Parts: sequence; structure tokens; C-alpha cells
Amino acid sequence: MRGFAQRSTIDDALAWLASALPQFGDLGVEDVSLPSAAGRVLASDVASPVNVPGFARAMMDGFAVLAEDTHGATSYNPLPLSILGTCLPSTPFPGNVASGTAVRIMTGAPLPNGADAVLPIEVIQVDGQRALALDEVSPGKHVGQLGEDVREGDVVERAGRVLRPQDIGLLSSIGFSRVDVVRRPRVRILITGNELLPMGTPPQGYRVTDANGPMLAALVARDGGEPLTGPIIADDRDAILAALRQDADLTLVSGATSVGQEDHAPTLLAQHGELAIHGIAMRPSSPTGIGRLGDRLVFLLPGNPVSCLCAYDFFAGLAIRSLGGRSRDWPYRRTTARLSRKLVSVVGRVDYARVKFNGSFVEPVSISGASVLSSVTRADGFVIVPMDSEGFPEGGEVEVFLY
Amino acid sequence: MRGFAQRSTIDDALAWLASALPQFGDLGVEDVSLPSAAGRVLASDVASPVNVPGFARAMMDGFAVLAEDTHGATSYNPLPLSILGTCLPSTPFPGNVASGTAVRIMTGAPLPNGADAVLPIEVIQVDGQRALALDEVSPGKHVGQLGEDVREGDVVERAGRVLRPQDIGLLSSIGFSRVDVVRRPRVRILITGNELLPMGTPPQGYRVTDANGPMLAALVARDGGEPLTGPIIADDRDAILAALRQDADLTLVSGATSVGQEDHAPTLLAQHGELAIHGIAMRPSSPTGIGRLGDRLVFLLPGNPVSCLCAYDFFAGLAIRSLGGRSRDWPYRRTTARLSRKLVSVVGRVDYARVKFNGSFVEPVSISGASVLSSVTRADGFVIVPMDSEGFPEGGEVEVFLY
Repeated sequence: MRGFAQRSTIDDALAWLASALPQFGDLGVEDVSLPSAAGRVLASDVASPVNVPGFARAMMDGFAVLAEDTHGATSYNPLPLSILGTCLPSTPFPGNVASGTAVRIMTGAPLPNGADAVLPIEVIQVDGQRALALDEVSPGKHVGQLGEDVREGDVVERAGRVLRPQDIGLLSSIGFSRVDVVRRPRVRILITGNELLPMGTPPQGYRVTDANGPMLAALVARDGGEPLTGPIIADDRDAILAALRQDADLTLVSGATSVGQEDHAPTLLAQHGELAIHGIAMRPSSPTGIGRLGDRLVFLLPGNPVSCLCAYDFFAGLAIRSLGGRSRDWPYRRTTARLSRKLVSVVGRVDYARVKFNGSFVEPVSISGASVLSSVTRADGFVIVPMDSEGFPEGGEVEVFLY
Repeated sequence: MRGFAQRSTIDDALAWLASALPQFGDLGVEDVSLPSAAGRVLASDVASPVNVPGFARAMMDGFAVLAEDTHGATSYNPLPLSILGTCLPSTPFPGNVASGTAVRIMTGAPLPNGADAVLPIEVIQVDGQRALALDEVSPGKHVGQLGEDVREGDVVERAGRVLRPQDIGLLSSIGFSRVDVVRRPRVRILITGNELLPMGTPPQGYRVTDANGPMLAALVARDGGEPLTGPIIADDRDAILAALRQDADLTLVSGATSVGQEDHAPTLLAQHGELAIHGIAMRPSSPTGIGRLGDRLVFLLPGNPVSCLCAYDFFAGLAIRSLGGRSRDWPYRRTTARLSRKLVSVVGRVDYARVKFNGSFVEPVSISGASVLSSVTRADGFVIVPMDSEGFPEGGEVEVFLY
């Protein structure tokens, strides 16, 4: 039983991670139906097999005309056009629009032969079989040209894009109903600790109910991973090793990560794989470990729930998002604001300080003594105090990450 | 066939919506398992049935001591304590820590009787049965006191909260495995238009493939609703009326919303319910309608996909989020930046201008003639140009909403 001989810096840990993370595409691909592809990461470029629109069409309700026929038309100088008929969506008009004539047309309907513009309904006065143009239009006005939205063969969506609702719409409009997306990383969540009771069993005696398992499952899902959960694992070398060897794309271990006599995870990882980082100059989450077993990244997250959240957010979340082709950046909105009271830290470690934010001022959450889970439920976000800083004064401007 | 006689303003439409929206809680409640409750809206306050921790416990690995025994200890003045034994998590130490003694303790283990602090392992040197204290601690240091995190009876989560991963963890730690959340609003999506082919059928001849159905399903899901979809509906009064009467908490209609001869939705709504708003001074989305059928809000969204997206974002999304107990605010991150070229608008209408954003400059997306769907897939976000503005000059600072 000893302390950490030496702690790595956060930068060391991030540098090791950057070298160890797989490349985009290593995870493989799955095809999913379009509406369920929203928020997923596109696996490969998509080129359009068609023109959209596939024909010139009206973009307004009105009359298909020859633009030159409307030249000089105003409400004081209405120009008459003879109405040939009506053109509805999907139904081409059989005739031809010659000078002096017009065809009633609805938005989306194919532009009749001969016409080159649509005169909107608002600037037309209908008088029996005559349409009086009250304004002029230029050629091409209110006409969606063939291929104007999407041209056949054009790449419309690039690999790596996180698909938005409008991308789903566009992909549907060019004929897709399924699309290839990056497979979700399968993330094994291992919760260790003899003192832990599983979710659903209230805390009793000297045993506490697991908070980290459900929290990590929600974090993994948020970051685009598929959480794989199981029963709580005893503080036992064989049990932990067997669990570490379970199939996954990435493994998270909560608890047993420090240097105590029951902290088996770091020694097991060092013995059977690689323990690249163990002990990080930060607070909370100092007893964090990062390494790998075979090809698989393994994150040893402290059992304290606040430390677990913080270590997840600094390291594991970044790796899960990266593995799934997503941004490595923090998944939290940032803003800058002034501190309503000073925020004290210590040179030589990075602090993850939970704060309240009322829209204008940032206030550190007061924590009596120890790191408690309610500090991250009461907080609106956090401020990172750099390694070389003793903190920030009252009134100082800080960057806030909002949960 | 006529134009809109008069258009409402966006403010009129939002004011009507504000008066018509149901109250929090009207939608009812469902209970869901904890991990799947992340991102859902809590339906009622949650008070803790237990103290967390339920006992005083160590927050560090080290030795449980009497703080006063360490007074004056430094590495130059190590103070010896006699080691009585070890205290593991969930296993109380049977003895008593008297002055001059210490018990080896692990993080999470119950503090033995008599001890009032934990001396961290880093400032202890073990010498056989003796622990040499190399630093002093104050009473209560590194001890999590009974109820320090959560006190029995305290309200730990308030109704209306969108549950974050750490809330899920906290709820698990106080013994919950399920929680009451606001039911998702069931949103009926009605896509009308004889010219439309369903998702999965490539566009052919003068027919186009539906973009709005899959896009709206993704938008509704994003805003916490449950999309209810069905086949495309013909431009037929009876078919549309029957569809409008289908059960839902809120109904969206795409297409047939304007004032043309095939635009049945507005007249049906006016006849069988209330058409409160029809025609809005904005671009795109001017032919938008808002009303209700019985108690149910109905949104008539233009068939043009960009107009459909814009009208959804201005009105329908707000209503769906509000119905589900979520924020009425735009679901897009905002930032301010300068325009790389001027953005032209017209006084008397609000413009929803799609823009590219490279992190420092905002550039309007050039759109040749008509509103095309690819303009919202190429764009990074949009700028809203107010009603009384002719636009913004090159270099002008604007607020950008990022998709």
C-alpha cells in the first residue's frame, strides 16, 4: 500500500490517447433506415443518382408565362394573357405556352413547354379566360431548374458527417431509404466493489447503491456508444481479469483503480496488457488509469462518482466519440462569464470545479469536505482551472462548460 | 385561386401559440427505467428516502486516525501510530481507534469508532506495525459524513428537469431503478401531395420523392416527441380530413397549406376546427398555417422542404418541446460573428437566411432563384433578419444559430 510515485499530466494522458486511438473507419459500418440515421455518423460519401428536381418546375402558385410577355406590366398597366388550362403537380400540361398565353400552375408542377417563368398568383387578376399580369417577371423567376437542388453524380453528403434532420430529408429525396453509418462503439462497463449494491436495491448498512453503472451507461449513449452492462464484479483478481477480457470495442472499469491492496485493475492491466497512464495530476480523478488489453482501450475510472464523471469526460468520452467518428471536443456548450466569488486551486494540478451559472455570473458550488455526487447535479457546469494556476479572483472572467 | 389577403407576423403567431399551448403536466406521465430516462423530463419532484452516505466513510485510501494525534507531524517530525488492523468497504472495523492508534482504511469503508479523520496514504510511512504520520490532518478531513451528499427527505431533483447522466447516477444511489417522466408527445406527421413518392422509391418522371416525412420524423424525435407516420395522403378533402382526425397529441401537415385550388388543409381546418393563423410575413414559409382541431394543435407546413424545416423550427418544434415540458428556446447553439458579405432582406418580413460559418466569419449561402433543400444541408446554420431590417452590411455582426 503506497501512494502514486509520480502523476502524469492531463496533456501526457491526452497525447498517449491521441497516439493510441484508431482511425476513422476502423470500427466498421452498418446500414440503418433513414429516419433512425439522424445523429449517426455517415460512413462514406453519398453521390446523388438523380437530378433534383428531375424537371423544371414551378416554385410558386401562379401562371406559367413567357417572361417577355410581362415586360412593363403593373397594376396601372395590366397586361392580358389568355389562359390555356391548368398544370398540376406530377401532371404535365399537354400543350405549349406561346406568346400571349399562360397556364395556371401549382407549386411543384412541371413547367409547360414554351414557358420560362412563373408569375405569382398575388400579381395576377383573373378575368374569365384572361389573366391580367399586374407585375413583370424575369426569365427563370420562380422556376426550379432541372438539377438546381442536386445534380446527378454530385457528392451531396460527405463521410464523417453527423446526419441532421435535413440530411435525412435530402437523402430521401434522392431515393435512399437506408444509409451506411459508422457502427456504434460497443462499450463494456465494468463496475467493481464488494460494497456495492446493484441499481434498484436501496443502500443498507455499510453498503451503497451503485451510481456509476447507470451514469456511465447514459454517458456512453450520449456519446454515440452502445453500453454493455452486467452484474457488479467482486474485488477479486480473477473476476476482474475475466471481465476485462469480455468482448467490446472499449472497456470502462469503475472502482479498484488506485494503489490500495484491493485495487486489482491497474496491476492486472499492467501484467496482461499495457498500463500507459496511472495517476493524473488533476482533482478530482487523480487515481485514473489508461491503457489497453490487446487492441482494446481500457479506462480505469475512480469509484467516487464525481471522479468517475470527470475522468470519463476528460478521457473516455473523447475516445468513445473519436472511435465512433465524432468530434473529440467536449460535448458541452461553452460560454464565458465572470465569477461571483473567487475560485481557489493549487499549482501543479488541473481542477474540474463545479459551478452554478445564472446566465451572467458563475459561482463555485460549495462542497463540504469531499467530492459528492449532488455537487454535479446541483451544478450547471464546470470550469477547468489549469495546472499552472492558483485559481481565479472574484470578478475574473472564466470559460464555463455547461452540462 | 387568390393570394393571401393579409399575412400575420411571426409575433402574432407566437402570441397565439403561447395562449394555446397546454400547461406542464397536461400530457401525463410514464415511468421508465433509469438508464433510459437520460434526456427525459422529470414529471415530479424526487425526495431521497435515505441518507447518502448512510454512514461516515473514508474518501481516500489511508489511515483512520484521531486528527489531534497528527498535530505537528511533518516529514521531518514523523509521529508514530500503532496499526490496529484494516477496514475495507462494507466491512466495519470491530475495534475502537484510541489516541496513538490507527486503522488502515480504504476509500468507501466505514470510519471506525473513535477515528475522526483519514490521513492519506501519500503522507504515511509504514514501518512494520507502526504508521508514521508525515503530515497533519484536521478533524473530519477526507471523511464523508452521514448525509453529506444527500440528506434523507431532501428534494434532490425537481419536476421539469431534463435528466442528465449524473442525475441518473444520483437517483440510482438513493435506491431508484425507475422514475416518472413526462410522456413523449405523440406527433402525427401527415404528408400530402399527389406528386409525391414515398421514401425508398426513387424520383421518376414528374414525381418527386418525399423529403419532409423522414425529415420531420427526425425533427420530432430530436425535440422529444414520438413521430407517428403513415402513407402519403392524396390531395383529397376526405382523405385529408380523415387523417387530421387521427389520434395524436399534435398534428403536422406537410403540403396543401397555401391558397391554391388543391390546398385543402387550411379550409378543412377552418371549417372543422380553428385556423388561427394562415400566411405569415416571413421567408421562406410564408404559406404556413396554425390552428387546432378539438384540443389538438395543428401545424400546416409548406411542402417545400426548406419552408417546411423553417416553419417547423419557428413554430411546431417550439410547441412540441413545450408540450413535452422542455425549453421553448431554439434547440440550436448561438454565437455572434461578422458577415463576410452583405445579407440582403426586405422590410416587412422576417428572413431565415442560411449561412456558412467557418468559426470566425458568416457567409450567406448563395441560392440560385428558389429555395432548395441542399441549401440547408450545405449551411452550418442560419441568421434571422428581423421584420424592420433591410439586411446587414458586409462586416456587420450577426447572431448565428448553428444546426
